Amino acid sequence: MSRFFSQKFASLIPYTPGEQPRDRRYIKLNTNESPFPPSPLAQRLARQEAGDLQLYSDPACAVLVQTAAEYFGVEPEELIFTNGSDDILNFAMMAFCDADHPAAFPDVTYGFYPVLAALNGVPFEEFPLREDFTIRPEDYTGAGATIFLANPNAPTGIALPLSDVERIIASNPDNVVVVDEAYVDFGGESCLGLIKKYDNLLVTRTFSKSRSLAGGRLGFGMGNRNLIRDLNTLRYSANPYCVNRMTMMAGVGAILDEAYFRFCCGGIVKTREETAEKLKTLGFEMTDSAANFLFIRHPRVGGMELYRFLYEKGILIRHFETPRLKDYNRVSVGSEEEMRSLTEALAELLGEKA
Amino acid sequence: MSRFFSQKFASLIPYTPGEQPRDRRYIKLNTNESPFPPSPLAQRLARQEAGDLQLYSDPACAVLVQTAAEYFGVEPEELIFTNGSDDILNFAMMAFCDADHPAAFPDVTYGFYPVLAALNGVPFEEFPLREDFTIRPEDYTGAGATIFLANPNAPTGIALPLSDVERIIASNPDNVVVVDEAYVDFGGESCLGLIKKYDNLLVTRTFSKSRSLAGGRLGFGMGNRNLIRDLNTLRYSANPYCVNRMTMMAGVGAILDEAYFRFCCGGIVKTREETAEKLKTLGFEMTDSAANFLFIRHPRVGGMELYRFLYEKGILIRHFETPRLKDYNRVSVGSEEEMRSLTEALAELLGEKA
Repeated sequence: MSRFFSQKFASLIPYTPGEQPRDRRYIKLNTNESPFPPSPLAQRLARQEAGDLQLYSDPACAVLVQTAAEYFGVEPEELIFTNGSDDILNFAMMAFCDADHPAAFPDVTYGFYPVLAALNGVPFEEFPLREDFTIRPEDYTGAGATIFLANPNAPTGIALPLSDVERIIASNPDNVVVVDEAYVDFGGESCLGLIKKYDNLLVTRTFSKSRSLAGGRLGFGMGNRNLIRDLNTLRYSANPYCVNRMTMMAGVGAILDEAYFRFCCGGIVKTREETAEKLKTLGFEMTDSAANFLFIRHPRVGGMELYRFLYEKGILIRHFETPRLKDYNRVSVGSEEEMRSLTEALAELLGEKA
Repeated sequence: MSRFFSQKFASLIPYTPGEQPRDRRYIKLNTNESPFPPSPLAQRLARQEAGDLQLYSDPACAVLVQTAAEYFGVEPEELIFTNGSDDILNFAMMAFCDADHPAAFPDVTYGFYPVLAALNGVPFEEFPLREDFTIRPEDYTGAGATIFLANPNAPTGIALPLSDVERIIASNPDNVVVVDEAYVDFGGESCLGLIKKYDNLLVTRTFSKSRSLAGGRLGFGMGNRNLIRDLNTLRYSANPYCVNRMTMMAGVGAILDEAYFRFCCGGIVKTREETAEKLKTLGFEMTDSAANFLFIRHPRVGGMELYRFLYEKGILIRHFETPRLKDYNRVSVGSEEEMRSLTEALAELLGEKA
């Protein structure tokens, strides 16, 4: 760090994105990307904008907001779009947390929450998951903190029932509860229907996973219009034109092409279940995933060993070298062919070790 | 604001982007957009990415950083790309300012600086421009503050000589000097050559103006590698994938297509000078602009009256209703045809008033 860097960031440790080695061609099962390209309509609408990039994007994102509001059954004033969902999570951390309003989230969850808390100087508490990696809802009821809940959770894929989510929201009327539904389209129960009932609920979503736009960067939040207004105050004070023209229209196309969306989600869920079965046959243990990844371990192979073996085979998965997670790996659900390569490689490893 | 909004933002007033009315087709001379579409190469490279958006963008922006480093004659470690230049300005405000390191900038400059200072809780001082809207360099020498200098300045278009810029940088060795060169390609003297000499200089640039990518959102900073490392610590803690795939490759194309870049800048400068001459013939007074806009007033017509007259004619210009600026308007340099429409409308107005 330079001698000019503000002391408040002296101990800030940035988020580590999934690795992207370039030495050879890998099967990438390490960043939860979709195996499907974006909807053809999304691609076409994005390309159409390329010739008009000399013009600023609409800071209000009006066309996208209108399209999304109709699709999700909310009012335009209940929606905000940002440059990926990390952006909306950062704005939520800024807006609804401070020294007097600490954050709270599970000890095992999206690794970006503690980074965002540190970035914004927000104190936070991490509630330990149960031994089986499920959330203990009673930790969050009446917690007196701004709660960040990934549902389904990462990297476990475990979904919390809607009734538990509602109990948490209802019991914290003086704090915002952020429910991060990045993976909800693969099997979770959304709490979106509750935003009219609770003024303290912010639901965040992303186009990166189920809508195949990770590289376009598009995230959004839905909630009571007063919460959205706060978030817009920050967005217009930090980066008013944060969504570019091409991605904005890609988002419109991705929403309108509902058939393609269902096809992709259905395909990913089917491949996930088939892969889970094959892995269980090989002796793997795993959480019950409602997301586009599996969280697996094998009684006879260490987490790092598994990761390294697959790396050598040209297959990238995500390993977290922390005491609680080191026996596990997170494996994104890729194409049927990619998952066949994975299971074949794992069968080979276990054959060698038999 | 909601009852959940952190008190620290209670008095935050967001930036107001240039208006974008949709009731009719306007000649838009109010947001300093380029009249030229992006380079054909930039368009083609952006479109090629649309089919791969299911994959995350490279958080290191390696291809773009490498291309830009060669073009600008700097090391890759001396460069950082962000989602528009507002993003890099925000990171600079966060990184190099705090309660002990206030910010300083002219009282008349890019209106986003005070907003970013307020957003980040940074105290700031505004040094008044001289009566003729020039900067008084001695205000900034040994100022003991983190300085933000738009050069050329906005909305005046006036460029500060390189010798003055260097004097300011050299006299503040314990503070970062951010030189915002958003408009430098239209006639200013860049201080980029000084980044090897001074470890406290950060030069920011944008692809929005001279490279016709306002709607793509691409900005960048160049400076000593320690400054860039600090800014990357913040970027990786806030939004690691902040530049999307399409814009990243549009940026590569915009750099490689040097001939097109020179053609656009040359055309805009020529149109600016021709328009300035015509406006002077009509009795307009103006600053000496080295940017892609003119800052004009007329002795017989109030600033708001001029703005309103042109609005009715379907021509948008930028009016700032502050005591110092209310007699003026900022007029972006559009196409030759657009500027002809402008000068014809103004001739009509002045004829009516003669």
